[in-house]
Amino acid sequence: MTSESKRVILAYSGGLDTSCILVWLIEEGYDVIAFCADVGQEEDFEAAKEKAKKLGAKKMIVADVSREFVTDFIWPGIQGNVTYEDRYLLGTALARPCIAKAMIKVANEEGAQYISHGATGKGNDQIRFELAAYALHPSIKVISPWRMPEFFNRFKGRKDLFEYAKLHNISLPVNPKAPWSMDANLMHISYESGVLENPNTEAPKDMYQMTTDPEKSPDAADVLSIDFENGVPVKVTNQKTKESMTDPLELFIYLNKIGGKHGVGRIDIVENRFIGMKSRGVYETPGGTILLVAHTDIEVFTMDREVRRIKRDLDIKFADQVYRGFWFSPECEFTRTCIQKSQDGVTGSVNLKIYKGCVYVLGRTSPTSLYNEELVSMDVQGDYEPTEATGFIKINALRLREFQRLRSLSNK
Amino acid sequence: MTSESKRVILAYSGGLDTSCILVWLIEEGYDVIAFCADVGQEEDFEAAKEKAKKLGAKKMIVADVSREFVTDFIWPGIQGNVTYEDRYLLGTALARPCIAKAMIKVANEEGAQYISHGATGKGNDQIRFELAAYALHPSIKVISPWRMPEFFNRFKGRKDLFEYAKLHNISLPVNPKAPWSMDANLMHISYESGVLENPNTEAPKDMYQMTTDPEKSPDAADVLSIDFENGVPVKVTNQKTKESMTDPLELFIYLNKIGGKHGVGRIDIVENRFIGMKSRGVYETPGGTILLVAHTDIEVFTMDREVRRIKRDLDIKFADQVYRGFWFSPECEFTRTCIQKSQDGVTGSVNLKIYKGCVYVLGRTSPTSLYNEELVSMDVQGDYEPTEATGFIKINALRLREFQRLRSLSNK
Amino acid sequence: MTSESKRVILAYSGGLDTSCILVWLIEEGYDVIAFCADVGQEEDFEAAKEKAKKLGAKKMIVADVSREFVTDFIWPGIQGNVTYEDRYLLGTALARPCIAKAMIKVANEEGAQYISHGATGKGNDQIRFELAAYALHPSIKVISPWRMPEFFNRFKGRKDLFEYAKLHNISLPVNPKAPWSMDANLMHISYESGVLENPNTEAPKDMYQMTTDPEKSPDAADVLSIDFENGVPVKVTNQKTKESMTDPLELFIYLNKIGGKHGVGRIDIVENRFIGMKSRGVYETPGGTILLVAHTDIEVFTMDREVRRIKRDLDIKFADQVYRGFWFSPECEFTRTCIQKSQDGVTGSVNLKIYKGCVYVLGRTSPTSLYNEELVSMDVQGDYEPTEATGFIKINALRLREFQRLRSLSNK
Amino acid sequence: MTSESKRVILAYSGGLDTSCILVWLIEEGYDVIAFCADVGQEEDFEAAKEKAKKLGAKKMIVADVSREFVTDFIWPGIQGNVTYEDRYLLGTALARPCIAKAMIKVANEEGAQYISHGATGKGNDQIRFELAAYALHPSIKVISPWRMPEFFNRFKGRKDLFEYAKLHNISLPVNPKAPWSMDANLMHISYESGVLENPNTEAPKDMYQMTTDPEKSPDAADVLSIDFENGVPVKVTNQKTKESMTDPLELFIYLNKIGGKHGVGRIDIVENRFIGMKSRGVYETPGGTILLVAHTDIEVFTMDREVRRIKRDLDIKFADQVYRGFWFSPECEFTRTCIQKSQDGVTGSVNLKIYKGCVYVLGRTSPTSLYNEELVSMDVQGDYEPTEATGFIKINALRLREFQRLRSLSNK
Repeated sequence: MTSESKRVILAYSGGLDTSCILVWLIEEGYDVIAFCADVGQEEDFEAAKEKAKKLGAKKMIVADVSREFVTDFIWPGIQGNVTYEDRYLLGTALARPCIAKAMIKVANEEGAQYISHGATGKGNDQIRFELAAYALHPSIKVISPWRMPEFFNRFKGRKDLFEYAKLHNISLPVNPKAPWSMDANLMHISYESGVLENPNTEAPKDMYQMTTDPEKSPDAADVLSIDFENGVPVKVTNQKTKESMTDPLELFIYLNKIGGKHGVGRIDIVENRFIGMKSRGVYETPGGTILLVAHTDIEVFTMDREVRRIKRDLDIKFADQVYRGFWFSPECEFTRTCIQKSQDGVTGSVNLKIYKGCVYVLGRTSPTSLYNEELVSMDVQGDYEPTEATGFIKINALRLREFQRLRSLSNK
Repeated sequence: MTSESKRVILAYSGGLDTSCILVWLIEEGYDVIAFCADVGQEEDFEAAKEKAKKLGAKKMIVADVSREFVTDFIWPGIQGNVTYEDRYLLGTALARPCIAKAMIKVANEEGAQYISHGATGKGNDQIRFELAAYALHPSIKVISPWRMPEFFNRFKGRKDLFEYAKLHNISLPVNPKAPWSMDANLMHISYESGVLENPNTEAPKDMYQMTTDPEKSPDAADVLSIDFENGVPVKVTNQKTKESMTDPLELFIYLNKIGGKHGVGRIDIVENRFIGMKSRGVYETPGGTILLVAHTDIEVFTMDREVRRIKRDLDIKFADQVYRGFWFSPECEFTRTCIQKSQDGVTGSVNLKIYKGCVYVLGRTSPTSLYNEELVSMDVQGDYEPTEATGFIKINALRLREFQRLRSLSNK
Repeated sequence: MTSESKRVILAYSGGLDTSCILVWLIEEGYDVIAFCADVGQEEDFEAAKEKAKKLGAKKMIVADVSREFVTDFIWPGIQGNVTYEDRYLLGTALARPCIAKAMIKVANEEGAQYISHGATGKGNDQIRFELAAYALHPSIKVISPWRMPEFFNRFKGRKDLFEYAKLHNISLPVNPKAPWSMDANLMHISYESGVLENPNTEAPKDMYQMTTDPEKSPDAADVLSIDFENGVPVKVTNQKTKESMTDPLELFIYLNKIGGKHGVGRIDIVENRFIGMKSRGVYETPGGTILLVAHTDIEVFTMDREVRRIKRDLDIKFADQVYRGFWFSPECEFTRTCIQKSQDGVTGSVNLKIYKGCVYVLGRTSPTSLYNEELVSMDVQGDYEPTEATGFIKINALRLREFQRLRSLSNK
Repeated sequence: MTSESKRVILAYSGGLDTSCILVWLIEEGYDVIAFCADVGQEEDFEAAKEKAKKLGAKKMIVADVSREFVTDFIWPGIQGNVTYEDRYLLGTALARPCIAKAMIKVANEEGAQYISHGATGKGNDQIRFELAAYALHPSIKVISPWRMPEFFNRFKGRKDLFEYAKLHNISLPVNPKAPWSMDANLMHISYESGVLENPNTEAPKDMYQMTTDPEKSPDAADVLSIDFENGVPVKVTNQKTKESMTDPLELFIYLNKIGGKHGVGRIDIVENRFIGMKSRGVYETPGGTILLVAHTDIEVFTMDREVRRIKRDLDIKFADQVYRGFWFSPECEFTRTCIQKSQDGVTGSVNLKIYKGCVYVLGRTSPTSLYNEELVSMDVQGDYEPTEATGFIKINALRLREFQRLRSLSNK
């Protein structure tokens, strides 16, 4: 193999870290193709492209996968009410496989045997990124500088990066680094490390970028209707403004806008990373939070109780799979298929009030609900014989009475 | 057995329904002892006592079990993050076994072979009430008039009850009946039926009694610290007012007050009843909601990840058991014991902001947390070798790569 | 409605009980159509037909559903490794919905509003039978004499049935009743009640009808190969005799023959009925036991580990659904769909030795297995880096070491 | 640190591999203390001791932990019906933490900072061994030569080991190596690799050491009674010979003897290793298999149905924890505590026939069973109202009928 063939696709953001990695990879003898996936984050892709080329990259490829991110990753996530450890809606974890898929596509197109990224050695993202890559391209080789002693021993702190940057004409960030790190995409922004590492320190007020502080959000609520078809949101209507969206990407961006305006979806949690340590993270997920509330409501409204009981077990497994980076695994494919099957008939409309950080369900309607107003009515008997409940209760009590009988005998 | 010995303990509220039942039971030849459990609901027990006696009850017994309700039912509920179908905090379901226990105690003391109640034949409460009774007193006999044709055929609507009341000098309610039914206790108020039976009709604004409308709640937040010991709240401190409670009953009432003031804990849901129908309910659970948020936070902060994964499965089973009325069952005893065991070390303090219907976690601290600030730090290496993550990822990828290898072969 | 229109389909076996019920139903003013499903039990259907007509039935319909029983009920059962409480292969429970389906078909064809059966009021079969009927025909009416006081108070013991039979010219059984009751179909024979009610009494040696006593079974083993495609057995070959079957019904009957010859599939258990009591049952399931062993083997051999972990949870739920009579329920449909999906690629062949009550797996092969002989070899390295296991272990140990660290601190 | 202080405890069997490792460790500058745990395997510990010392070990310590293995590892395993992937009784996996615990004790006593073992880099045992060690002694350092390039590149095959042995006066094995590898302890012998690596090759007849070939086992059965107290076997009685044991170690050895004599407990499976590959293993577990059958029977007989449903989920988790080496983990401690709690009242006696590879339950009795012979009887009504089953069924059918109703509407 000639040195030309050592071709690497580098996940490149234009920031200091990946710029240094770019230059370091060239030093190490690689041809570098910089890569960035557009998953809806605010970023100056043109500036990044120029910078990458200036630093020696053969080229930079920006793949816009924001629409695919919504339809192929966020939508299945919503169908699975995807929540890790009861709270985290998995904004980052859903984006990683989407990004990795696009990157492996580029690796194949460009004939690269290597991919590289700037994720740290303690986090989840290295795992999510690499498991997806190995699953999609079993023979790919991953260069993860922050886990390589030749790199991390050379760059022990930010000072080392600054010096390296100066030495190699890497332009330095204009603004001082925020005292936390952050990851943004269409679904959420996550904040961690730095000042957030003390789990008892309140997150700074000026940190949030996607949502208004609920204490400063509008005093007038918005009321939305969200229509679902088979568990997927297909239409959002603002009852006040009569705005209405049906395109998935527009719809989701609109929910982010409304949720963001009202400060919806902020959480501050400690979570358990896959590698086994606890970490503190702050997340803002405005549109996703609204959708989760709405989807849960329409799902319970339309789905048989016992189907949902089974489906909820699958949801929990699904969230673990996603969190841990196993999106492209046989078990996650299987789980998604089952969850999707469960969504047949999860169709209808939910009315929501969005106000000061909260999402309130006001009502719901569905052409396929198992809700039977006459059956449940306290004023009408419907097709129901109350006397039957007596037998139901007595038979259910049989086991309890036997248990008590035995216990009484034992205590004698 | 003489007719005198047909003694029944009647769950009596003083309202129209149970007053008619009281008189009807006497007509049927029973000695009636009226009973009411004080679980924190607002009620004029003295007036009910007088009314019961006037209507012919031998006596009326009011059992104050509000403290026991908090320590023996709500606290285990909080330890188990008790949530039915992802949303309902089970305020009514937790109170029923507490009430039934007190009632069976009275039945034993009074030598009654019968108990009776006014729960409808379509609901969950008849089941919760009776399963608890049968479990605690296997030979008790239950008279459930709303499931007996001789009763429900005679009293087909409210009009029949009114006429019966007039005939038997039962004083009629002064206020017109609200167009919904409601159940109140220390933990929550539930609303259902009537105008709420249409699941798409927004709940009336003037219905709520425990919580302020978030749109009218104070513009200034309260900040609370809640201390837990082994999963149980032991102290609440208001950071602003410096108020502080440690007595369980006072503490819980205070949380209701603060939560109620800020409009916390309102939900509007459709749920699946045990008998198999879907019903719509609106709940307000101010203090319980605050505690659930705080307990979840301190639990994830202190508990090992994999222990919690198992414990969460138990939580889900626990919620189903409680919802379905199986509190006094071998499986619920077993589940509670396991959950309680998991709470060893769930000790520490959570800071919360309460504002406009929302509960925000601001930070948490614990003497027994597995959170290791140095280990997780992005600036310090701690006792962690990033190179090890490579092996971890590669071994985890082994299975995924094999799967892909097989799939590629199959597709050839 | 005229009395002619009170038409009932009676599940009729020709035995004493259902003959008395047949006559009693006529007495009660019903037009009776006798019905029997052939699910492979040994029975003289012609004799039963004649008897039914002689007793006054309008006609008797025998539906041969044995093939459907195998392909639509036993095969999904095998795919789901269907086992209740770790031991019972659900031979009766799988047959009930098959029978009920055929019976409801007849009810629809004959315009009957009623169905009736002779199942007892304490068992599972009444539930399985009726739940299936209600699910398939929500407005059907079920006449269950053994739960009707007017019937069971009249027929308090066998003596009353005998007298009634004499009175109505119902021919009495020639042979004395066995001191146990039994249910037979293609999959199994179950024995219960009578002398078996004492759970410590050994089952009589002469009771078994489908299997040879292992102590008297041949000294020479049979060796079978069973081929599966997507979890379904498609071919059985006897290595010794070279016999081979591919037709589902023939194949299953052949497995019963070989299993029966070698005494395979006898179990003596206490199980928990749906109504909440424990009962003792003895079962012989020769072919089903062989298939379960073989299917489990090929499934683990071909299926991804984590997919199977999820699938096994579904299996357990599936077995409960089947045992409790919920075959025709939304949750069982959902579960079967998911299980079926998991069987894609469960394809291959298992070699088995059948000998003296045991089924031994000798080996297995598959075109779609994830088994990689080179990868697992202790002599060849394959595509595996042993050094990577170090990182895998160290990262897995991280959480354990942290836990120990905290415990050490706590104990100081 | 001086070179003297590089002290290592080596798990030493006296075989070729660990003898070479012993010498190699000395070459590498370590003080070696050889260690062997007696978990009931047949081994010449004295010869191993001499050999170790001759090769340069400072000393050799043999720890007899066979009794502890039975009471502290096998008994909890039996209580948890410990079965991996439906078949493997985990004989090796249960022994590893027992051995590791003894070894860490020695490391502490001897002031060693290192431990070492000869497990391969592809297997489960390296993981089980090391996770236990790290959990019990977080700062221990593990030397795993078969994962170290400096070792495995030097010893690429058996030929290299032979040459090294000759060079260093390591005595060579007298007998040729069996064409498989094996692990033996009191609970089982496992066989894998070599000729077994082809999953379709039948295991050699002469391989088995603990059990007689069922085709050659006695024609006369043995009948045993096993008494349990709270899920633990406390007495075994042979009905034929009247032999009886109560000492845990003797009792278990006796069950091995009887099981072995009758060829009980042989399985040939493919299993999924923790590292993600499938491997083929053959196991013989005579006593353990008998106990598992007996324990399952007494457990279902005595335990409430719903408690066991929850407990079975815990069993499955427990088996995974044990298989993967997490015995000394917070989650496994928690699981064991819960399982143990469930065993209160799992008390009674089971009669078993042991014959030609099979274990048949003949009957069971218990002072604490929930089995109620009168309640379940088909001849006696007991405390049971058959009419109540009607209501039970109708209420259970409610949901199914609603589902069908909706489906009919949808199909119109």
